[in-house]
Amino acid sequence: MSHDTDAAADTVQIPLPELQALARRVLLRQGLSQAHAEAMARTIVAGQRDACQSHGVYRLITCTHSIRSGKVDLQAEPVLAPASGAVVRVDARHAFSPLAFERGLPALLQAARTHGLGALVINRCFHFSALWPEIEAITAHGLAALALTPSHAWVAPAGGSQPVFGTNPIAFGWPRPGPYPFVFDFATSAIARGDLELHRRAGTPLPPGCGVDAQGRPSTDPVAIAQGAMLAFGGHKGSALAAMVEVMAAALIGDWTSAESLDFDAGAGAAPCHGELLLAFDPERLSGQAPAQAQARAETLFAAITGQGARLPSERRYAARERSLREGATVPRALYAEILALAG
Amino acid sequence: MSHDTDAAADTVQIPLPELQALARRVLLRQGLSQAHAEAMARTIVAGQRDACQSHGVYRLITCTHSIRSGKVDLQAEPVLAPASGAVVRVDARHAFSPLAFERGLPALLQAARTHGLGALVINRCFHFSALWPEIEAITAHGLAALALTPSHAWVAPAGGSQPVFGTNPIAFGWPRPGPYPFVFDFATSAIARGDLELHRRAGTPLPPGCGVDAQGRPSTDPVAIAQGAMLAFGGHKGSALAAMVEVMAAALIGDWTSAESLDFDAGAGAAPCHGELLLAFDPERLSGQAPAQAQARAETLFAAITGQGARLPSERRYAARERSLREGATVPRALYAEILALAG
Repeated sequence: MSHDTDAAADTVQIPLPELQALARRVLLRQGLSQAHAEAMARTIVAGQRDACQSHGVYRLITCTHSIRSGKVDLQAEPVLAPASGAVVRVDARHAFSPLAFERGLPALLQAARTHGLGALVINRCFHFSALWPEIEAITAHGLAALALTPSHAWVAPAGGSQPVFGTNPIAFGWPRPGPYPFVFDFATSAIARGDLELHRRAGTPLPPGCGVDAQGRPSTDPVAIAQGAMLAFGGHKGSALAAMVEVMAAALIGDWTSAESLDFDAGAGAAPCHGELLLAFDPERLSGQAPAQAQARAETLFAAITGQGARLPSERRYAARERSLREGATVPRALYAEILALAG
Repeated sequence: MSHDTDAAADTVQIPLPELQALARRVLLRQGLSQAHAEAMARTIVAGQRDACQSHGVYRLITCTHSIRSGKVDLQAEPVLAPASGAVVRVDARHAFSPLAFERGLPALLQAARTHGLGALVINRCFHFSALWPEIEAITAHGLAALALTPSHAWVAPAGGSQPVFGTNPIAFGWPRPGPYPFVFDFATSAIARGDLELHRRAGTPLPPGCGVDAQGRPSTDPVAIAQGAMLAFGGHKGSALAAMVEVMAAALIGDWTSAESLDFDAGAGAAPCHGELLLAFDPERLSGQAPAQAQARAETLFAAITGQGARLPSERRYAARERSLREGATVPRALYAEILALAG
């Protein structure tokens, strides 16, 4: 239980194994099965380790809220169907998603190795996590990965004013030599839903272009936007990508859109419930070359980016990870106290 | 040879079969094989039919320029390798891409039907076309499709000032009831390369955010941006997508990046030479449902977009197609004269 504190920044440093144990304890106390608690704690602690505050231990609080809605199955074992060609399907049975991903991962890796590419379809999951932990779990095996998932319908299409899309993240990864793959993971909304909430609580305006009010007028007021709609990043192109996420990670995989998820939620404020699509690609099979040759070409690309002082996505996250592995994860003191209280 | 003219708009209306014959004649006269000329003319006339001026018969002029560079093989038959799992590979052998796509399409469709999803890798092609004709050729068979391709390195990464990425288009399609699928096809650069050229010729400034000068300072001057770099759309998110296109449609498929393509061009100003990646997905296999059920969910999504007065991507293109099918394709009179001259 020894950990340093940083009074000035009002944070505490918690060793990662201790944080994992704490997260697990909170989740078990909420009634989750051992397997779900372990998988969720891994995802949540990875977020805190990488200084992703919105997807770190703060999620213990939002997951608790989701659980209190009564909609989440806390014990359901994911059901992995026999692979159909290159398609692997896991039915999460209205439980949280991380365990379903872990149960489907080996079959996805095998499908990609066997066929050159493979798809992992996760159905009927409550989704609260970032996508990059799953992307990294795939790139760790030398495969490229793409992941898409809807959320709740909060985002209006370009040219419209009524919410249709979720924040609909797109994540991509490519294995690199060394521990850190090329990974990005971003919402197709102009801002994250969490940022909207933070601005609403703080009473501060959002940057222009993030949303419209209930009458469809551009607004920077987080309260007005919450009553109206958020907007996609990048105008009609971002809006098209948000639509693609709905089509590919809902219609294509036979699961709910962000609108269906929000309907099901019915004001409970729980995590969205829908599916997720992950694709894995074997560079050796797709390039027809030795993996080292494909990697070398990508490294030349990355060097052309970093060599001019531009950042690769996830660089800050990896720097935070290095620090956390040495010094423990940094957690705001007030949040840490809340979580300790949840742990009982 | 009868066609109406519209003196006021200084355009001519050319029946589509006549335009196809004219395009074919131009291409044959340049030394292309019958098979290449047919495939390229189909792509080019489809662009003009849909009022995509930058990818219509104007491409006959740019293709002629590419041919004069001496780099393009005008006769090479694409070589389709035996499918390796769900991966289909066509070597275009430094010829133009449309014939390579046509030769690979049946095997891609079969791979997607057999395995649930499939990849078509086109290698060593000169690429001048939009991606949507290929997307539509896949959705016509009831499959979803995603296509990516690099170009020439003209676009700086977010936070940088030196070109690394191409205009790197991403195109997606989903089959709908009726003749018109859901399709988008956009450059990940803030503007198309063709728009930069048009502004340069016209001496008009670009909108802010499209590029930087050679010193990396934001600029709206098309001459300064041509000497500096274009920018990706949507800031760091668009830049991440542009990087993904390089990784997936170059490193992953064992072909050239936009930087390698530009090096090879060595100032000739020819079409870029690299690979292309197309993915096809079988909704029945991925949804585990009847195709009609997956389609119905997508139609509900599209109705929520159009029902609030927002547009679906490609709507204007389809409206132009309807007109062209009735009245012939609209071609600027001066351009038509240039093409007639090329046809001899």
